[in-house]
Amino acid sequence: MTSDRWSPNINRRALISGLALLPALSRVPFSAVARAQTSQDGQLGSWNDGPAKQAILEFVRATTDRSSPKFVPPEDRIAAFDQDGTLWVEHPIYSQIIYCLDRVPAVVEKDPKLKNVEPFKTVLSGKREAIARLSLRDLEKILVATLTGMSVEDFEAEAKKWLTSAKDPRWKRPYTELIFQPMLEVMQYLRANGYKTYIVTGGGQDFVRIYSNQVYGVPVEQVVGTAGGTKYGYHKDGTPFLTKEPRLLLNDDRAGKPEGIHLIIGRRPHAAFGNSDGDRQMLEYTGAGEGARLMMLVLHDDAKREYAYGPAQGLPDTRVGTFPQALYDEAKKKSWTVISMKNDWKRIFAFDQAER
Amino acid sequence: MTSDRWSPNINRRALISGLALLPALSRVPFSAVARAQTSQDGQLGSWNDGPAKQAILEFVRATTDRSSPKFVPPEDRIAAFDQDGTLWVEHPIYSQIIYCLDRVPAVVEKDPKLKNVEPFKTVLSGKREAIARLSLRDLEKILVATLTGMSVEDFEAEAKKWLTSAKDPRWKRPYTELIFQPMLEVMQYLRANGYKTYIVTGGGQDFVRIYSNQVYGVPVEQVVGTAGGTKYGYHKDGTPFLTKEPRLLLNDDRAGKPEGIHLIIGRRPHAAFGNSDGDRQMLEYTGAGEGARLMMLVLHDDAKREYAYGPAQGLPDTRVGTFPQALYDEAKKKSWTVISMKNDWKRIFAFDQAER
Repeated sequence: MTSDRWSPNINRRALISGLALLPALSRVPFSAVARAQTSQDGQLGSWNDGPAKQAILEFVRATTDRSSPKFVPPEDRIAAFDQDGTLWVEHPIYSQIIYCLDRVPAVVEKDPKLKNVEPFKTVLSGKREAIARLSLRDLEKILVATLTGMSVEDFEAEAKKWLTSAKDPRWKRPYTELIFQPMLEVMQYLRANGYKTYIVTGGGQDFVRIYSNQVYGVPVEQVVGTAGGTKYGYHKDGTPFLTKEPRLLLNDDRAGKPEGIHLIIGRRPHAAFGNSDGDRQMLEYTGAGEGARLMMLVLHDDAKREYAYGPAQGLPDTRVGTFPQALYDEAKKKSWTVISMKNDWKRIFAFDQAER
Repeated sequence: MTSDRWSPNINRRALISGLALLPALSRVPFSAVARAQTSQDGQLGSWNDGPAKQAILEFVRATTDRSSPKFVPPEDRIAAFDQDGTLWVEHPIYSQIIYCLDRVPAVVEKDPKLKNVEPFKTVLSGKREAIARLSLRDLEKILVATLTGMSVEDFEAEAKKWLTSAKDPRWKRPYTELIFQPMLEVMQYLRANGYKTYIVTGGGQDFVRIYSNQVYGVPVEQVVGTAGGTKYGYHKDGTPFLTKEPRLLLNDDRAGKPEGIHLIIGRRPHAAFGNSDGDRQMLEYTGAGEGARLMMLVLHDDAKREYAYGPAQGLPDTRVGTFPQALYDEAKKKSWTVISMKNDWKRIFAFDQAER
C-alpha cells in the first residue's frame, strides 16, 4: 500500500504455472455471459449435508431470529466474498490476466512503436514459455498498458466485449460461466435473509464491476477491488470524462482487504468467504467483531471436477490462491470452516448436473 | 490528488473569516443528536411552490413513471448530495475543523512535548485572532494530529462524544441539528421513490459516517468523503485493528468528487446537489449522463434565518462554499436549478417553525 505504482497482486510462479498450461490466448466469437441461477432444488441445493452447510444455516438462523441473543439488525448484515478461487475458477491463472494479455495486440496497434519493445514483443510472439518467463515488472507494464490510460467508458466497452467472447480452454465456456454454483446459492440465501453481499477481490474493481450484477447479482457499488485513481477531464466539446490512471489507490489483497472494506463499506462484515492466504486478514477482521460471525475457506481439493491445489492438503502449491498449512492451522484454531469442494458440493457449476 | 500528504480542502480565508466570528471553542455537556424528521405537512412540506420545488417533482415523475421516455430503472437511481452548505450549516467554518481544534488539548495531553510547539501552542492559547492567522500548513498539522494516528474505533468514540456535546454558538444546538429541513425532505422524497441517496462531501469520510445514518438516514457505505488510508495491524493479544494514517487516498472536492463517485459508487448519479464551486465537477459529471438529470445548487441568500454569502449575488465571498459568478453562469447555461434559501424554503431547520 505504500507504493504508488500499479502493484499486481499476482506473482511470477502463478504466471509460470498458469501460462504454461494454457493452450491458447484466443478469442471466440459471441457467447452469452452466465446469469446467476436460482438453485433448482431449494436453498443451498448444491450443498451436501455436512458441517459446512450446517455452519451457514446456523449462522443465518442465529443472526436473523429476533429471539436469538446473536440477532443482527438488518442494516448491519454485511457479507464479504473474495472472488478468484472463491466464487469462480482462478486456476491456472486469473481471468483478468488473460484479458490483459489478450489486449496487448490492440495496445500495440494503437502505439506501433511498442511492437519491438519488451515485454510487448514477447507477448505478441505468442510463445507461451517465453511469456511465462516474464518478470513481475514486465507484467506490471502489461497491466498498466492494458488497464489504464483510457476513459472509464472505453475500458468498460473493451472488457465487456472480451467477457462475452473469450472462452476458458478447458470448459470451452465464457469465464463468467465458471462460477461456483454452491457459492451463488450462499449469496442468494444470505440476501434472502437481509444480508448485503459484497465482493472483496484482489482483482480490478473496475473489471469485476462490469459483470458483478449480471453474474452474481451484486451491484457495482458492492464490489471492492484493487483500484487505481482516475482523472477528471473534458473532451473537446466540453463533455467531462474520467481517465483511468496508473496510480494505485487500493491494493485489495491481504491486509488491503480489511483496509478496502473500511474505505468502501465502512463497517465490519459479519460473514467472510475466501480461499487463500490473500483472504486471511479479511477473515481475521471479520472474526474479531462481536456476536455471531461466519468465516469460511474454500479448499480446492477436487481435481476431477475442478482443480486440486494447495499445500494444506499436500496438494501442489501453484501460488494461485495459495492455502498454506499456517492458514489451515489458523482456521482450525479460530473455528473457521473449511469447505471441501470434493465433499461439500454436489455440483461445481450450474452447467454441471452431475451429483455426488 | 497527486500529493500523499493530508491536504485539507479548506483554505486560509475560510479560517480567518470563520474563527474570528466564533465566540468560543467550547464543549457543552450532553445534548441529543438530531434525527431525520419527516416533514409535518407532507412531501417537500418545507418548500414554497416555485421553480425549485417544481424541478424536483418533475424529475422524480419523469424518472419513476414507467410510461415516461425518461424512466430510470430502480437499480440505477443514484442521487448525490454535498454536505457542508448543502445539507447543513457550513458558515462561518466547517464543523469538522472545530472538532479538530477542540481535540488539540487531548492530543497535547497525550504528547506533552507538543505544548510548546507550533501550531499547537497557538491553538492552546485560545487567542482566536492568532488561531485565525495560522497557515494552511499549520492547519494540516492539526488535521493530521487530530484525525490520524489512532485506531478507527478510538476516532469514532472521540468524534461521537464531541458531536453529542459540542454546540454551535449562534443556535446553541449540536451541529447535527443544524440540518436544512427542506434538503432532508428531498432526500426522503427521493428514497421513497427508489433512489439511493449518497453524501459526497469534501469533509472526512470517517467523520461524516459517524452520524450519517442517524441524522440523514444515509448508511455509512453511502458516504463518500475525503479519505485517508488505514493500516492493518494487531493488538498484543492478536486482535486485529485498523490505524488511521496521514496518507491521503481521496481528496473528495472539486474534480475529486466525480473521481470519488467512480471509486466508491461506480456509476454516474442521476441527481446531484451542491452549493459551491467545490461541487461544480460533480454537477457537470451528473449532467453529462443521458436521460433526465437533476442538478441543483443551494444559494445562501438568507442572512436573517441562516447566512448570506457568495459573490454571485453580490454577497460577501467568505471562501466557505464559494459561489462565484462563473458557477452561476454555468448553472444558467446548463439549466441547473439554483435554490434560493430565502425564497424557496418555508423553514430552514426542523426546530424553526416560522413559515415565510
